[in-house]
Amino acid sequence: MQQGVEKMFESMISECIPGHSIDCVVLGYEDKCLKLLLLKWKNTSIWSLPGGFIQKEEHMDDAAKRIMVERTGLDTVFLSQFHTFGNHCRRNVDDLIKKLNNQFLHDTATVDWFKQRFITTGYFALVDIRKSHPVPDALSESCSWVDINKLPDLIFDHEEIVRLAMSHIRIQLNYLPFGISMLPKRFTMTELQKLYEGFLGRPLDRGNFQKKMLKLGIFMRHEKQLLGGAHKAPWLYSFDRTKYEALLEKGIGFI
Amino acid sequence: MQQGVEKMFESMISECIPGHSIDCVVLGYEDKCLKLLLLKWKNTSIWSLPGGFIQKEEHMDDAAKRIMVERTGLDTVFLSQFHTFGNHCRRNVDDLIKKLNNQFLHDTATVDWFKQRFITTGYFALVDIRKSHPVPDALSESCSWVDINKLPDLIFDHEEIVRLAMSHIRIQLNYLPFGISMLPKRFTMTELQKLYEGFLGRPLDRGNFQKKMLKLGIFMRHEKQLLGGAHKAPWLYSFDRTKYEALLEKGIGFI
Repeated sequence: MQQGVEKMFESMISECIPGHSIDCVVLGYEDKCLKLLLLKWKNTSIWSLPGGFIQKEEHMDDAAKRIMVERTGLDTVFLSQFHTFGNHCRRNVDDLIKKLNNQFLHDTATVDWFKQRFITTGYFALVDIRKSHPVPDALSESCSWVDINKLPDLIFDHEEIVRLAMSHIRIQLNYLPFGISMLPKRFTMTELQKLYEGFLGRPLDRGNFQKKMLKLGIFMRHEKQLLGGAHKAPWLYSFDRTKYEALLEKGIGFI
Repeated sequence: MQQGVEKMFESMISECIPGHSIDCVVLGYEDKCLKLLLLKWKNTSIWSLPGGFIQKEEHMDDAAKRIMVERTGLDTVFLSQFHTFGNHCRRNVDDLIKKLNNQFLHDTATVDWFKQRFITTGYFALVDIRKSHPVPDALSESCSWVDINKLPDLIFDHEEIVRLAMSHIRIQLNYLPFGISMLPKRFTMTELQKLYEGFLGRPLDRGNFQKKMLKLGIFMRHEKQLLGGAHKAPWLYSFDRTKYEALLEKGIGFI
């Protein structure tokens, strides 16, 4: 077993609180696709969300941020807690140990740590893939972006965690304007619409979408995007930070 | 110390997982007031939310339901998880022990249990006060409804827990029609408006509110409410269960 892993497990057992973990659903947008950041365990076909444990004197929110840095190399500005998963049957560690084929989990203290019941708190982050350069940790073979519609089998209940993150984001889409952290600085309304469609999993009416969005008054219009026939070139927009922040405060209310 | 309390602490320590608790924000509506269900610890001025711990082989959602029954006597149909509080400094047990004045917390095992770090998951429930008959448990002097605008000081971070529950409910108000569990079977639009105003903490425009609500198409109109001058009598409404459920599925979307 590599020294990096040994050290990681030692500090995990001595420094962290037992029974509670954190899992992060990190989403980005690229090539008209919503993508999820996944770790693949070394020499296996096990895929999982980046996750970890909380130190004894650490705020859970800080733990989530630290875990992201340690496991993916990403210093995510904004992690948002969305749900805590408290099913006592949510993890089958025997199955994990079998699949790991005597890698990592053989030391008794480590196996016992992993075998205890864990309640896990899910956090999500929306990031700009173009500015993110994930690096796998000592446990992982890769740390990469995977199309949300083509996910491999995930460990434990991680599929449910992703599903619930998406459902929370969908509710927020209806209440808060989204996308400021996921799109390039200047973007077309079609790009924004594709992003929304990625979250909603269904097509939206183009005219209606643009009308509703522009009515929010949070965009600045710039030059046209010149790609081929200039007469069809769409406008480029950016978020007006001040107006965006004000709307975040207020929400897009039904009431 | 009473036998009920001793038994409660014994089973807590032997049957529950350490480090994770549950706290419930139970809201009702009465006399044009939003009210919160609070426990008052025996012979003290300590007020707290009904809370408790999770058994080793128990789903966290089931634990919340059991805790409500054990601590308040209420068999709440629908408890909704809204946030998990993971600040390592969220509880000051020394202060609690002092205030308890040698009641309850003196046995070493019990004190040690309470002194460990607890992450707590908050659940909220919206109930019909008219049908709820709370009963205090062995630890509590009373279990009663308190006007949300006139809350006493609460233990630990329970004020923050209430504040965050309210903020989650406000977001949901914009997305889901509310009130079906809190109002009498037949109600006036003014009563519904007062309920919404209770959650939002601000007055709403009467005409606008009624127009938006009735447009949802989830109400059935019945006879007029006859109180005094018949010419001013408001219509009574009830929720149309089928249409209400369909709208819950869909949400009141911005998109």
